[in-house]
Amino acid sequence: MAIKTGKQYIDSLRDGRRLHIDGKVVSDVTAYKPLQGIIGTIASLHDDQHDPAYRDVLTYVDHAVALRALGKTEAAARAQGMVEHCRENDLQVTHALIDPQSDRSTLDAPSQAVQVVERRADGVVVSGCRMLSTLAPVANECYVGPYYPRQPGEEKFVLAFVVPMNAPGLSILARESFHRGEDTFDRPLSSRFDEGDAILMFDRVVVPHDRMIIDGDLAAYNGMLAARPGYTPLQATIRSTMKLRFLAGVATAIARANGRDKLPRFQAAIGELIALVSVAEGIRAGAIAEGMRRAEAFARGEFKIEGDGISEPKAIGVCGGAAINFFFPYANTKAADVLRLAAGSGVLAMTGADYANPEVGPLMDKWLIGPGIDARRRLELMKLAWDMTGSEFGSRAGLYERLYSGDPEINAQRWFRSPITGECEQLVHELLKP
Amino acid sequence: MAIKTGKQYIDSLRDGRRLHIDGKVVSDVTAYKPLQGIIGTIASLHDDQHDPAYRDVLTYVDHAVALRALGKTEAAARAQGMVEHCRENDLQVTHALIDPQSDRSTLDAPSQAVQVVERRADGVVVSGCRMLSTLAPVANECYVGPYYPRQPGEEKFVLAFVVPMNAPGLSILARESFHRGEDTFDRPLSSRFDEGDAILMFDRVVVPHDRMIIDGDLAAYNGMLAARPGYTPLQATIRSTMKLRFLAGVATAIARANGRDKLPRFQAAIGELIALVSVAEGIRAGAIAEGMRRAEAFARGEFKIEGDGISEPKAIGVCGGAAINFFFPYANTKAADVLRLAAGSGVLAMTGADYANPEVGPLMDKWLIGPGIDARRRLELMKLAWDMTGSEFGSRAGLYERLYSGDPEINAQRWFRSPITGECEQLVHELLKP
Amino acid sequence: MAIKTGKQYIDSLRDGRRLHIDGKVVSDVTAYKPLQGIIGTIASLHDDQHDPAYRDVLTYVDHAVALRALGKTEAAARAQGMVEHCRENDLQVTHALIDPQSDRSTLDAPSQAVQVVERRADGVVVSGCRMLSTLAPVANECYVGPYYPRQPGEEKFVLAFVVPMNAPGLSILARESFHRGEDTFDRPLSSRFDEGDAILMFDRVVVPHDRMIIDGDLAAYNGMLAARPGYTPLQATIRSTMKLRFLAGVATAIARANGRDKLPRFQAAIGELIALVSVAEGIRAGAIAEGMRRAEAFARGEFKIEGDGISEPKAIGVCGGAAINFFFPYANTKAADVLRLAAGSGVLAMTGADYANPEVGPLMDKWLIGPGIDARRRLELMKLAWDMTGSEFGSRAGLYERLYSGDPEINAQRWFRSPITGECEQLVHELLKP
Amino acid sequence: MAIKTGKQYIDSLRDGRRLHIDGKVVSDVTAYKPLQGIIGTIASLHDDQHDPAYRDVLTYVDHAVALRALGKTEAAARAQGMVEHCRENDLQVTHALIDPQSDRSTLDAPSQAVQVVERRADGVVVSGCRMLSTLAPVANECYVGPYYPRQPGEEKFVLAFVVPMNAPGLSILARESFHRGEDTFDRPLSSRFDEGDAILMFDRVVVPHDRMIIDGDLAAYNGMLAARPGYTPLQATIRSTMKLRFLAGVATAIARANGRDKLPRFQAAIGELIALVSVAEGIRAGAIAEGMRRAEAFARGEFKIEGDGISEPKAIGVCGGAAINFFFPYANTKAADVLRLAAGSGVLAMTGADYANPEVGPLMDKWLIGPGIDARRRLELMKLAWDMTGSEFGSRAGLYERLYSGDPEINAQRWFRSPITGECEQLVHELLKP
Repeated sequence: MAIKTGKQYIDSLRDGRRLHIDGKVVSDVTAYKPLQGIIGTIASLHDDQHDPAYRDVLTYVDHAVALRALGKTEAAARAQGMVEHCRENDLQVTHALIDPQSDRSTLDAPSQAVQVVERRADGVVVSGCRMLSTLAPVANECYVGPYYPRQPGEEKFVLAFVVPMNAPGLSILARESFHRGEDTFDRPLSSRFDEGDAILMFDRVVVPHDRMIIDGDLAAYNGMLAARPGYTPLQATIRSTMKLRFLAGVATAIARANGRDKLPRFQAAIGELIALVSVAEGIRAGAIAEGMRRAEAFARGEFKIEGDGISEPKAIGVCGGAAINFFFPYANTKAADVLRLAAGSGVLAMTGADYANPEVGPLMDKWLIGPGIDARRRLELMKLAWDMTGSEFGSRAGLYERLYSGDPEINAQRWFRSPITGECEQLVHELLKP
Repeated sequence: MAIKTGKQYIDSLRDGRRLHIDGKVVSDVTAYKPLQGIIGTIASLHDDQHDPAYRDVLTYVDHAVALRALGKTEAAARAQGMVEHCRENDLQVTHALIDPQSDRSTLDAPSQAVQVVERRADGVVVSGCRMLSTLAPVANECYVGPYYPRQPGEEKFVLAFVVPMNAPGLSILARESFHRGEDTFDRPLSSRFDEGDAILMFDRVVVPHDRMIIDGDLAAYNGMLAARPGYTPLQATIRSTMKLRFLAGVATAIARANGRDKLPRFQAAIGELIALVSVAEGIRAGAIAEGMRRAEAFARGEFKIEGDGISEPKAIGVCGGAAINFFFPYANTKAADVLRLAAGSGVLAMTGADYANPEVGPLMDKWLIGPGIDARRRLELMKLAWDMTGSEFGSRAGLYERLYSGDPEINAQRWFRSPITGECEQLVHELLKP
Repeated sequence: MAIKTGKQYIDSLRDGRRLHIDGKVVSDVTAYKPLQGIIGTIASLHDDQHDPAYRDVLTYVDHAVALRALGKTEAAARAQGMVEHCRENDLQVTHALIDPQSDRSTLDAPSQAVQVVERRADGVVVSGCRMLSTLAPVANECYVGPYYPRQPGEEKFVLAFVVPMNAPGLSILARESFHRGEDTFDRPLSSRFDEGDAILMFDRVVVPHDRMIIDGDLAAYNGMLAARPGYTPLQATIRSTMKLRFLAGVATAIARANGRDKLPRFQAAIGELIALVSVAEGIRAGAIAEGMRRAEAFARGEFKIEGDGISEPKAIGVCGGAAINFFFPYANTKAADVLRLAAGSGVLAMTGADYANPEVGPLMDKWLIGPGIDARRRLELMKLAWDMTGSEFGSRAGLYERLYSGDPEINAQRWFRSPITGECEQLVHELLKP
Repeated sequence: MAIKTGKQYIDSLRDGRRLHIDGKVVSDVTAYKPLQGIIGTIASLHDDQHDPAYRDVLTYVDHAVALRALGKTEAAARAQGMVEHCRENDLQVTHALIDPQSDRSTLDAPSQAVQVVERRADGVVVSGCRMLSTLAPVANECYVGPYYPRQPGEEKFVLAFVVPMNAPGLSILARESFHRGEDTFDRPLSSRFDEGDAILMFDRVVVPHDRMIIDGDLAAYNGMLAARPGYTPLQATIRSTMKLRFLAGVATAIARANGRDKLPRFQAAIGELIALVSVAEGIRAGAIAEGMRRAEAFARGEFKIEGDGISEPKAIGVCGGAAINFFFPYANTKAADVLRLAAGSGVLAMTGADYANPEVGPLMDKWLIGPGIDARRRLELMKLAWDMTGSEFGSRAGLYERLYSGDPEINAQRWFRSPITGECEQLVHELLKP
């Protein structure tokens, strides 16, 4: 099938989904004002796919490869079917990987989690709740799959499937919109990029058999967590690196707008961010090299790689995943903080409409300028800094960066169980060998 | 004069001030919806002053004492006059202490700062800009005074004065409202406590002579920064301590609502906050003891105290000020972060109106509950957590705590110039004495 | 009895104790070279007690008060007896409060801990191990008592007693000396203040009945942990504050010696330490005020205080204890770090003997000087900086500051169980009250 | 020439050098006890080069390439000569890149720095001081070159040259030995790896013309700082990664020895280190890929690379250098700290000789054991942990990791001047484009 245009994407959202947002029931998301920013942004990405200037960068001709990660022929075939469905129809896909926060004192599946409630000829009936589905309000399909391992006895919760966002019985319970109609000058990010988050509520949703990838197979379910080539962390590394560049850029622009770029301490604070950009780009290069080696190993039927290809064999963690767990939350949190300090209280600013007021604008032009920058541009940068670090969009962006890959403590405990730990310990035993 | 009632306070705000906010010109602030929350909160504090249950706690009978800090008879008399004016009329006073961010590479007065432009028989005419005036939209008077020292040659910027918020020529250029009409369930803090911030623009404002406390007297201006008994840091210590208690309380309530209170790591994270509450209360007790000693010293005509009253004389920094500079920004930033991690992505939540929807509420009652807590209360806590850490109110609150006492680096450099530094160094010379 | 002279203290150490240190069995600690520094330092403190210039500061006339904290008449009487014994004989007392690190995955008493092995007419026979006894090599008596609570069923480990360091069966297993004969120029601290640490091994040590304060009484044992007026944290606060002053002083002196005192960033780094000194002194003032209120409450037969004496009743944590748990480890670790960065690689320096070499000294006088400082003094400061942060003495000092009050995580969990936690949470419920 | 044996290396050190260390003048370093550990370690690495098992890993056949980085034919030829001299003679080379700490308030060359004092037919005579020369006591040659840029007017300080360690007039002023004769059980690292640091004092040292690479050519001197393919950061990345592995391994081994490996918080703390190991290995892979691209660019006569080879051209920082500046100091400092907390006060331990004492050993076997570990091994691990974090060797290792690439603040300011900063800022301007 062909790649979609923006218009086709927009049309695809008018599918009768059941969206609850801002206290309203929205039946046509394309007509709901706060969502028009993000829908427009995604639509223009679709249009870019057709633009000769970007087509070769944004699209590719697929050479179908079988998904072998599941290690189960039938599950793999169904997974492959879903991948092809999404790819061939150029669909926007969200995911919902985490159980609701019913009781975070345990990783056991809570009774509120999505589970099998009936098996029928036309499919499996599931009920329960899953979070946190980013992009849900404006996506076409939703993938429900593993994130934390399940235990024996939890088979009815051992599910991986894909359903369309308009599946009967599926309620999309979205968080409040973070774009409330402010214009682009005042909210350059919120007004364009608020992708939404939602809790998905499955009230007897029927999942047809060809959409049910895993149903009760604990080994396949938990296996999916281990046997991954690292594409997800690679894209996350690229995304987080660009965000780090952007944060560093806003900090720089703000510092120039108030003269702090001339102070050694802000030069150093921003300079450290620039160095972290280079570290991030090194990680990305490493993640690409490693991902290619894993993909080749998969092609040979192996599920892991050993060594760096130069020295002796040793366990290799997914470097992009490690970076997403611990490097980017550190770097991007630091970057947002440098930006906050560079901007100071300047972010607590008036609106573009205030500047447009003929009584106010001239006073701002006289008194609210910076070195080599006029009042309007200065205000525009301050609004951007606020939208990056202080608006609800900005707060959520910071949280997103930190929690993107899940609870840091649980991730760290998982790394403790890596074979690398034993290798490190082995160095000690070798040193102490008599 | 008598203490005001809430109604009297509200009436006092209808004074013809010139407020620019949210792109609007607001002539009657009491009628402007986003401000009604904070006006109501302040009004009810006024009413509490009349409530027999609180009267003795909230009010006192003043025994007038002369302000000696200025060390200049006439300036002191004018300052005393302003204090009495505000006290006797039970006025809400804001302040504007900092120059606009025209060029933060220097502490010199920028040409955009408030300055004398004419001297007339009826007063001094000033023009220029000052920031950041918290409470400005709903205050009665504004104090403009020193924060960073001025240099010789900057005499026209060496000003301390008080003007009413409706002074002709004064424009209050407020930042956007952070309350946009959400109800109290969804924004329990924004809807009640958004006090506002503003940049004040003085366009040929006449300051009558009795309101002009300092005009060009560099020694008096800079002296005000040094000769303070510490009342301001004491109140800030008390405020920040209560905020720390509240942050710790929200973290605890959230942890109970999702079961994290049973995990040792959250117990430890919250427990550390509780210990910091105790440290803060120790600092407060120290600040009270120290403040009383300074007040007594002032009464004896001395401008500083030495030693702790027990051991040998030594320089005493204002402990509350030091805590406001470096302890509370540390403690409260940490507390907000513990709260963020305790709540996780749960703060990205729907609204009270969603719960009220008869299709959604029952599903939430079934699937979005916590240990011993129902869906409604759980949602209410999540909204509070968001309003504390993620809403624009919350972001601003975090920034406020960190920047309340100014740029941390400049404050630190000021502490380096304290006589304590030399005393510390002296310990080294004594140890190394042959 | 009279206060001791230095000579009397030194004589008291020749008591036949069994000290294992540096791979040697030392029968006369006063003749063991690495210990002579600390013994000399303590002896001179004893002599100072007789010096008219210091006598009134260092000694006092006791007005005996009964110890009520134990809440058991007989235990209290025995405790009181031990206090009087130590005070009247002017004894140096060490303590050993922690079980050996046999299994830190639990707080249960390990089978290696000191325990009752026999009860006899002349006393209780105990065996097992306790750590970490600071000052043990040069102390007169050792107090063994509670630190973490014991559980029912652990009664044989529920012990508080005092034994002399030469008790038969007691082996003092000291850590290596950190003074190895370097002279005072090269190790100004190690050579004078290395107080020693030891694990105490009790191999059928008989504790006479009047020295056995608690034997199996779980309530009394655990009660001692709760019912304390706060003298220990107060002295720890004072000690840590002086150390913070000293660290700040060394950082300042080093910065002057290499010109970094002129750089804004080192001014700010040191300035922040100076502010933390002021915070610490505020905490101390608070701890004194609070300790006096607790002592008065004890005198009234009450075991706790409520409120700050000004506003409504509320739970009061021991502020000095909280500071020792979380403020001083933060502040002093930061101070050591500022010192490290101020000194940089300059601490990796030659010795005083190198300077004394006639070939080397003149080259150093020419090339290894700083702004306004000669090569000898510069080297002396660098050796001090190293002894503070890099020598084994310095490393141990840093560890001491962080672990002085035990495992920070377990302390934090203990604070979580304070009534303050509930009070903080209550603020939330009040805010959300309809 | 052939690769050296250990014996040949040892013989090469008996060259009449002038070493001042520990207050002694050492004329034969191979006979000086504290240096025998490191000399033995290096000698055995030389022997490994001859061992068939390691030869192919440790040695290679060189295909000589000209050094083009200097951009000056003659300087490049001399540099190439020096490289060949060192390589062909299998020499150990130290470096001394930094001026003495005469006045760290400026980056200007101080009058104490190494400088030209005379030009003669046989070479250039230099005098002055350089630091900090790691390995100096046991190296064969010393390279003196640029680290921070020099300014016009400082030409006499603009020098890059290589001299043998026994050059007449060169005094090696070494810091104290950190190995003082403890045996390998008690100091498993100090006893083998204390490589030494020294300040080099040049008292009219003659540098022959063919050893003087740069003499006064400011462009070439400063150019060397910019035009580097990144081999140095690559080796530093590999070294720091292995150190991180080792630190994580010691932390793991210690945690197992005291049961903390069963506590979630230590699992998480160590697990985070393991993840950082994976990040480090990703950076290394990136640094290899990038280094190869730079080497290829050099071969084409270009001095920089652009883009990642995949997307559009953009500035590329040296990712290994960025990691050495900011990632490894962060990761390795954190690792040492995890190790400290895992070991706690257990590192304050007795010696192997104490254990060997027949009175003490059996008590330790009874009371100082851990889960599944005997007293001897437990002690051995504790000594290792101390040697890693608390001994002078360990303290210096921590400092080394942080200061290896120079003053972090100055490095950060240098990164601020990278073209990447402008690219980041450009993203902002693009976003805000109307």
